[in-house]
Amino acid sequence: MSTDQNGTTTRGRDTDRLETFSDGVIAIAITLLVLEVRVPHLEEGEGGAELWEQLGHLWPSYLGYLISFVTIGIMWANHHEIFRHIARTNHYLILSNTLFLLCIGFLPFPTALLAEYLGKEGERVAVVVYSGWFLVTALAYNFLWRYPSHARRLIAPDADTSAVDSITRRFRLGPPSYLLAFVLAWIYPPASLALIALLALLYTLPNAAVE
Amino acid sequence: MSTDQNGTTTRGRDTDRLETFSDGVIAIAITLLVLEVRVPHLEEGEGGAELWEQLGHLWPSYLGYLISFVTIGIMWANHHEIFRHIARTNHYLILSNTLFLLCIGFLPFPTALLAEYLGKEGERVAVVVYSGWFLVTALAYNFLWRYPSHARRLIAPDADTSAVDSITRRFRLGPPSYLLAFVLAWIYPPASLALIALLALLYTLPNAAVE
Amino acid sequence: MSTDQNGTTTRGRDTDRLETFSDGVIAIAITLLVLEVRVPHLEEGEGGAELWEQLGHLWPSYLGYLISFVTIGIMWANHHEIFRHIARTNHYLILSNTLFLLCIGFLPFPTALLAEYLGKEGERVAVVVYSGWFLVTALAYNFLWRYPSHARRLIAPDADTSAVDSITRRFRLGPPSYLLAFVLAWIYPPASLALIALLALLYTLPNAAVE
Amino acid sequence: MSTDQNGTTTRGRDTDRLETFSDGVIAIAITLLVLEVRVPHLEEGEGGAELWEQLGHLWPSYLGYLISFVTIGIMWANHHEIFRHIARTNHYLILSNTLFLLCIGFLPFPTALLAEYLGKEGERVAVVVYSGWFLVTALAYNFLWRYPSHARRLIAPDADTSAVDSITRRFRLGPPSYLLAFVLAWIYPPASLALIALLALLYTLPNAAVE
Repeated sequence: MSTDQNGTTTRGRDTDRLETFSDGVIAIAITLLVLEVRVPHLEEGEGGAELWEQLGHLWPSYLGYLISFVTIGIMWANHHEIFRHIARTNHYLILSNTLFLLCIGFLPFPTALLAEYLGKEGERVAVVVYSGWFLVTALAYNFLWRYPSHARRLIAPDADTSAVDSITRRFRLGPPSYLLAFVLAWIYPPASLALIALLALLYTLPNAAVE
Repeated sequence: MSTDQNGTTTRGRDTDRLETFSDGVIAIAITLLVLEVRVPHLEEGEGGAELWEQLGHLWPSYLGYLISFVTIGIMWANHHEIFRHIARTNHYLILSNTLFLLCIGFLPFPTALLAEYLGKEGERVAVVVYSGWFLVTALAYNFLWRYPSHARRLIAPDADTSAVDSITRRFRLGPPSYLLAFVLAWIYPPASLALIALLALLYTLPNAAVE
Repeated sequence: MSTDQNGTTTRGRDTDRLETFSDGVIAIAITLLVLEVRVPHLEEGEGGAELWEQLGHLWPSYLGYLISFVTIGIMWANHHEIFRHIARTNHYLILSNTLFLLCIGFLPFPTALLAEYLGKEGERVAVVVYSGWFLVTALAYNFLWRYPSHARRLIAPDADTSAVDSITRRFRLGPPSYLLAFVLAWIYPPASLALIALLALLYTLPNAAVE
Repeated sequence: MSTDQNGTTTRGRDTDRLETFSDGVIAIAITLLVLEVRVPHLEEGEGGAELWEQLGHLWPSYLGYLISFVTIGIMWANHHEIFRHIARTNHYLILSNTLFLLCIGFLPFPTALLAEYLGKEGERVAVVVYSGWFLVTALAYNFLWRYPSHARRLIAPDADTSAVDSITRRFRLGPPSYLLAFVLAWIYPPASLALIALLALLYTLPNAAVE
């Protein structure tokens, strides 16, 4: 894939389409999560009271929707931020972005697994898979940032060095944090989920994004 | 998240991607609504007459699709309008937009609940949840506008003051209107739905958008 | 909704976001069609021969996918063409576009109905609903074009008059054609489907787009 | 469809919307793949061990997701690349792009078929359909590139000749490769899948994209 000389034009078109496509995949993955929240069905003779009760039993679905939505939302925000500093795309950037999207696009499955088994037999398995997939996603995400930022390979010449370094520092925290969540899942699943939720909450503090 | 100095460029890229992503999530949520309209199945020996009848029984699904589609469509139009006045994004704007999208992305669930239980046992519960979720969404939407518009924090310097104030006035009507719909749902569910439909219709009058 | 004076900028942003959102809804509706093609399940002891047979029985699903995909694709192409001539949006354009998207977004349902009942009891009902919904969609589409093009209300001052008139002429053919398909559906359903497929094929001739 | 004289503006808008719409359809098709990975259900009395086992049995779903995601991702990357060289759209380009999207949009179905029947009775049928659909898609893709590139019909005047020729050379490899996969599917299905996976891997080498 030859690189164009005419900086400005190429830059716009190149990263723009990569971002549009990524936005599409992330937006769809985040919105498909709701399909895993299933409308409960009443038996003959049941009424409003039983429906409230059944809606209450869906709490693992709500929790899964909430954690996955916020975490994917944060990943989108970070994707948005790192591409502000990337000047152009090339073959390997497209590949690592595809790998990252493959991880994001699969997230509705572990989320559905979590919604199905939280608070039941199989809870540990579900949380191990859920936190494990976040770990894989965090690794893919780090790779996506390491490749263009290493030696400022694809970084815009006028990008703010301290902003770039700050992203690198923050991204470094993602994999060990999710590794801890993964290990906790084997020992005590609720602690793993609490950590994943906490990592999402941390991001609400400015300049403290994890992932 | 450092703020760039070079106004025009940053502005374009920044809010553009936030809008693209939001458009994606809203477009998907609005289109997923149709998945809740299930094709009826005929029993052995049934024919066209029974199919018409069963298609008729799906009226709660059609009504849910219609009200939710129009209301989400109006929210999109308003999102489109408020972002015409917002000059740049920051950490908190992204957060409050994510919160708003979380509400929009969940709407197919209460809509499916409504489609399932309207005109049956459990109707009140379904309408309470439906109107209640619109109330939550309206609150999240107000927060999304309050944050950037307060003291014109992120508003474009050249934005038309009267247009900005007009949005603020109109947005103020959303939460109390949906609160009324929520209260009505407990007393007489059809009145709640009628109010929600009316709120959508009101928007068809120019300069009278609710939400 | 106040109208901006500064032509160029407003134009870009305004119709751009309306087009992006519409593209999203149309792209999703067109892609959701595949979800109605269900993987057949083999019984115990059945093998490859039975699977081929069952895949063959899915022909109504393939046909429905094909006709709906191509027709929605043509509608997208026309949407793309008419918005090349529209200079700016306003309240009513957004409303009529939302109405049009509501029709497009619902198309997966009549398509699923067609896939389920073609060649079975209930075929007439399914084709009546299918062609009827295309008629409604064609009417909504005409309204979407009539409003901005009437007296060149929202048409770009520099738009090519003959191109604008050509769209108006072609659009005029849509509703009567689909009305004929709708009438045919009551009499002889396969003729109705053949007409709808023919209308799509006609578009492949340049300057002969129907819809 | 008349062609505008004012080069730059028209160019931008024209191919931009075609690309946005295509990105949407491709992004949705790629993300819908996950819906075919179904959460396993435990029977009464089963626990974590059985859930691990059942998650293991889902390997055909994971494999199908992986191969289809990567292949669609590569097709997107190529679509992105060929449209860098295409200066403007016309009626036939839109048609051939719609045909290509029709193929992409249908891919979740053969993928679901593969996931259902891999390693079971009916495996051969599933792999024949899967590889056959990739063959059809590769042919549609070649047509999409042949049309604008033939005699440089719609290619930008300033496009790099060697880059254009390189795409033409690489695209030529797609149909025979997938034809081989299709033939292999009748003889020994696993070899067919291995070839399709290999074709995807080949793309990770720079300047060796297949499709």
